[in-house]
Order: sequence, then C-alpha cells, then structure tokens
Amino acid sequence: MELLRLGPIGHEIPAVRHDGVCFDLRPLTDDIAPSFFAADGVERVRNALAAGELKPLDGADEMRIGAPLTRPSSIVCVGMNYAAHAREAGAEPPERPVVFFKMPSTIAGPNDPIELPPYATKADWEVELGVVIGSRTFRVASAEEGLNNVAGYVLGNDLSERRLQIDESGGQWSKGKNLPGFTPLGPWIRPAAEVDPRDLRLRSWVNREARQDSSTSDLIFSVGEIIFQLSQAMAFEPGDVILTGTPQGVALSGKFPYLTDGDVVEIELEGLGRHRQVVTVTE
Amino acid sequence: MELLRLGPIGHEIPAVRHDGVCFDLRPLTDDIAPSFFAADGVERVRNALAAGELKPLDGADEMRIGAPLTRPSSIVCVGMNYAAHAREAGAEPPERPVVFFKMPSTIAGPNDPIELPPYATKADWEVELGVVIGSRTFRVASAEEGLNNVAGYVLGNDLSERRLQIDESGGQWSKGKNLPGFTPLGPWIRPAAEVDPRDLRLRSWVNREARQDSSTSDLIFSVGEIIFQLSQAMAFEPGDVILTGTPQGVALSGKFPYLTDGDVVEIELEGLGRHRQVVTVTE
Repeated sequence: MELLRLGPIGHEIPAVRHDGVCFDLRPLTDDIAPSFFAADGVERVRNALAAGELKPLDGADEMRIGAPLTRPSSIVCVGMNYAAHAREAGAEPPERPVVFFKMPSTIAGPNDPIELPPYATKADWEVELGVVIGSRTFRVASAEEGLNNVAGYVLGNDLSERRLQIDESGGQWSKGKNLPGFTPLGPWIRPAAEVDPRDLRLRSWVNREARQDSSTSDLIFSVGEIIFQLSQAMAFEPGDVILTGTPQGVALSGKFPYLTDGDVVEIELEGLGRHRQVVTVTE
Repeated sequence: MELLRLGPIGHEIPAVRHDGVCFDLRPLTDDIAPSFFAADGVERVRNALAAGELKPLDGADEMRIGAPLTRPSSIVCVGMNYAAHAREAGAEPPERPVVFFKMPSTIAGPNDPIELPPYATKADWEVELGVVIGSRTFRVASAEEGLNNVAGYVLGNDLSERRLQIDESGGQWSKGKNLPGFTPLGPWIRPAAEVDPRDLRLRSWVNREARQDSSTSDLIFSVGEIIFQLSQAMAFEPGDVILTGTPQGVALSGKFPYLTDGDVVEIELEGLGRHRQVVTVTE
C-alpha cells in the first residue's frame, strides 16, 4: 500500500492506494502528519483496508500529488553516506554518520516546480532514500531496534545550493539546504513491512541525461545503523524524516552544470516512485 | 509584559505577567505556539490587558515555569557570533552568519533538571539571546526589515555536548546540540517593542562561580543583520526561534571543567530573567 496526499498545496487529502485503487483516508485521519504516525496510523489504515471500510477517492488521478506527509518535527539528513559521493565532494568517507538539518517548511510535492532565487547559481540535486520514523526513538540498543522504529520509506530530493552550503557557510552545511521547496518528497510512503531498504536502485536525471545511478547497498551506514547511532545524540519523534544520503553524480563533482531556469530534474527510487520537477528562477 | 507557560510538563497554561500580576491566557489562546504568533497573539494579549478582559491565574507563583513557547517549526542557531568566543574555540570570527539547528523536542523549562546520558562527558553551557519570529520571513530587504519581524525575545541556553558536536561529528555541529532538554528557554518572552537588543548583559555561572559575562553589544552580527542575511537562505515561520550565539567563557575553552552530576548551571540575560538547572546523569 502507498500513503499519499492529493490536492492543492495546503489542502491535500490523505489517501491510500492499494491494488490500483485510491481510497480516501479522511474518515480515519485529518492528515498524514506526526499525530497520524504517533497513533499507529499505518496499522489502522491496513486494518481499514482489510475490513473494506474505506471509500474510493473520486478524481484522484487528476489531483496534484503533494508530499506524502506534512509538518514533521524534524528532517535530519546524513551527509557523505556513499563513499564515491564523499570522494567527488573532496572528502574522506566518514567514520560516523554526519548530520545536518532541513526545515519542515522546505517540504514540497514530487512534481512541484523548483523555484530558485536569482542568486541560487549553484543549485544541485541529491536523490535519497527517506525514512519516516514511527515512534519516539532515543538511545536504542542496536541497529535492529532502530529499524523496528521505521514506519515507512519515501523518495526525497535533498536539493542544495552549494554557494550557501559551502562557500558562505563557515563550514556548516544546513545553510545551503533550506531554501523553500528544497525537500520534495513522494509520491508516496510505503510501509516498512513492504520494503527491504538494503538494495534499492536510485537514479537521477537532468533534462533526460543520466546523473546518479547507484544502490542503497552502497550506503556506508545502513538505515538501522543510522538510527542506532543518531539516537544516542537526539530523540526522533513519530513522523520525523531521515534522509540517508546521496550517491555520486551531483553537480558539485564538477562533471555537470548546476541547475538553471527551465531544467527538468527527475529522480527515481526502486519501489518508491519518481519525481519530475521543472526549475524556475524567480526574481 | 511577560508571556509565560506555567504548570507540569506537557500541561502548561499560557499566561501573561503585567505589573506583577499573572493573568490566564486560556480564554485567548490554547497555547503559546506558532499559531499564536501567526494570529497576532502578542498584539491580542496587549489589547486584552488594556481592556481588562483577563483574569488572574490562581496559584501562579507555585507552578513550575515551562518554556514560554512550544513546538516551533525550527530552532536556528548562529555559531561563533562573539569574536572572543570564536577565538576560545580555536576559530576565526566568521565573515557571514554560521548556522546549525536544534530539534524542537530539545526545548525545556528554565529550571528543569539537565538530564545527561552517562556518555555525555563534554556537556557545556552557552547563554544566548533568543529571538522569536512573528511572521513569515523570507528574503527581507534589510536588517531593519528583519528586526520588524521579531515578535519578542527570550533567554536560552544552547546546551552542547562537545564530543558529539566536534570529536564525532565529521565537522557538522548539530549532532552535539540535540540531546533531549538541550534547549532550555525562558522564563518568559518579552515583546519586541519592550526590548532594545543592542546592549544586554548576559552571564552564566556553574556552582555559583562566574563563567560568561558579556553583552549583546559584542555580537558580530546583530539581530536584524542575522535575520536579513539568513532570510536569503531560508524562510522563517511565526514562532521560530533564533539563538544568536554565545560569548566567551564556556568549558570548550579549556579553562573550565565540563558539566557533571550535581552541577548547578545558571544563566541570566538583562531584562529577560534567569535559569537555574541542576545536572543529573541518568543511566
């Protein structure tokens, strides 16, 4: 099953797609937000589907696809988590997970335009496996226990502006990760029980030319290991999102130009769908 | 006037103190949260006070003091914003604001215990002027316009664990800033109209021995300049908190020991009150 939010920005309807039919989740939840995950939302949807209690959502195919969750308490990102990407960025692979943060207000739908201010001349793509946390997670005892706290998985693009991230940041990356719309997520969340995150192909394209093409099997720190290690330093809450890092093939490598007006950015993650976004530079 | 939240953790009552009397704000707002600031909450409190519409809160003096706001969308911190602190940390004063993030779940009351896990052997204090944003703030045109978007000011302690922040972070500081309770705020928010942030004395003590003693007049980037510059890189939302940096006199300098079980940490900011917290190490 695939959890979705469909409709205009700020008015998305929570939905679930199962066997090709899209069902309206409004009788079950106001939205797919932290409170949904805190109240065992995924399990309740599964039960409602099994009991035939949900009604199809009329016109679902014509609706805009929003990000499949809203207002997480935190978006935590792991940097340099693919060895070849660390090398293309001029760094050694890290010994422990390296983290930075994105504001919840950066979340956008998977096909929304990427709106750049004119000074964002080093905008870059980063296809990533996203993890949605299902329950409060602090000081778990192992990677296995970490993995047990995952509610589901989602495709994310950790859009980055390298001038703000690197040239003018004093070395702290978060500054270049937080322009509005810089965290497109979706099209759907797939429950953890239906995903094996250990070997998923993830790819990106700009104007139909291949950029990134790798697998989560190349992750230095696995999903469980990330949660285990980071939970010693911070408490994750239900609905929090962890972006697990991006593989080689970004513009920062010097091999490809940065994004500019009219570019079409596409990313795809095996079993977790595809984004297609057009870059627009706005004064 | 001073905005407060009083009562047990998770059940705080919004309140305002004016001329020594504490009034109950529940007829006016459920809580002091982002929606309060988005709906001109400070102005509505002022009007309600002037109209004599509020009733005193019985027993206010006996209640626990909570953080004076809850669930901000983001807590953005400026690092190395006092030249002497940058030097004690072994860095040059930055040319532009350096930022890292704290999770909203790190917020605690100003007198709550500081609970450290046993491996947090390099826990450190950082007294700071905190800014509460009143309206959405993106790409403002000047420091003056940035300052106009401030709803109020609050005293904050940017508690830090230096092993997680520096030794095991790969250089990204946020990892050492996010243990639960690491952002005590309060005791109150004072509206921007009643505060001149340009020369406020800020101090800290451990076990009654002086540690930091400086003034916001030593800030490299002023409050307005921080908001102006950062708003080119990120959009602030109503209720967001910006911690503006800490002056010299922290344990990281090597001059003082890190925090340990039983230590009493106090911080004070002119016109914005005082914290008193006891460190407890918990298995």
